[in-house]
Amino acid sequence: MTEEQRFLREAIALARANIGNGGRPFGAVVVRNGEPIATGVNEILATNDPTAHAEMTAIRAASRKLASPDLSGCTVYASGQPCPMCMAAMRLAGVTRVVYAYSNEDGAPFGLSTAAIYEDLAKPFADQSMTIRHVPVQLGDEAHLYAEWSDAQSKQRQVHGARKPGCK
Amino acid sequence: MTEEQRFLREAIALARANIGNGGRPFGAVVVRNGEPIATGVNEILATNDPTAHAEMTAIRAASRKLASPDLSGCTVYASGQPCPMCMAAMRLAGVTRVVYAYSNEDGAPFGLSTAAIYEDLAKPFADQSMTIRHVPVQLGDEAHLYAEWSDAQSKQRQVHGARKPGCK
Repeated sequence: MTEEQRFLREAIALARANIGNGGRPFGAVVVRNGEPIATGVNEILATNDPTAHAEMTAIRAASRKLASPDLSGCTVYASGQPCPMCMAAMRLAGVTRVVYAYSNEDGAPFGLSTAAIYEDLAKPFADQSMTIRHVPVQLGDEAHLYAEWSDAQSKQRQVHGARKPGCK
Repeated sequence: MTEEQRFLREAIALARANIGNGGRPFGAVVVRNGEPIATGVNEILATNDPTAHAEMTAIRAASRKLASPDLSGCTVYASGQPCPMCMAAMRLAGVTRVVYAYSNEDGAPFGLSTAAIYEDLAKPFADQSMTIRHVPVQLGDEAHLYAEWSDAQSKQRQVHGARKPGCK
């Protein structure tokens, strides 16, 4: 069995165990240099947190374990095809590679496909199902928020030395 | 001042306070029926969680407060243009409307634009910067994971009565 097959089977086993706990059928494993760092399952039903997809809980656990938001060099093994939120989260965290077993096509007959969400989010903002509205800020006498942050960063650097750039 | 302006100013004030705490310049407020339900700021630096964007922490706080992952009817006011992860999370949670003040164009000179991530994620899987790989499951003697979940759901419904459909 390849490393890829082994970790995918582990992700699927986590998903299966989550069904046994009344949860949704999704599990994920974060791996770096061939070693599993953290795992996650879908915890929406247990926590009411709509963002608690398996990949997200695994990413959060990995970042706690590594004490860093930077998951460069990590592979995420997911039992099911990641949704756009998880895909973007992995991208933001610097995850290098994601491997999944069950596809959206596999999930569709069971209401477990996120293909429609991919399609919706691919549309221009004005055409998406969620209303997205930009209200440009009127600065008046106030400082530009980002200039203020940039100044604060410069002062910190002067005090503490250079810091590595973060993500948003 | 309109309700929209008021909550945007609140989101910006949260972002500004987060700068004062050494954090990144992002804040968000979740509002339902004109009432603020929850707020959030970017907590990446404080927690090392790469998913802890302001909109995400606000969504999580709102779902805890409402004891539900369903944020239908909610508006999220964000100080800055939401990134693809936050946009997808809001969509998954059923958020009806998002309003933001500072745009990616405003953020670009300060390294605070997520436009490049939008562009990357809009590409076909094969062309994105993160490797995305589908390894179809070989079932062999095992049950189909989603069929197993579906069966478990049916049994739960027989025992507990109908449940509202969840999201992935």
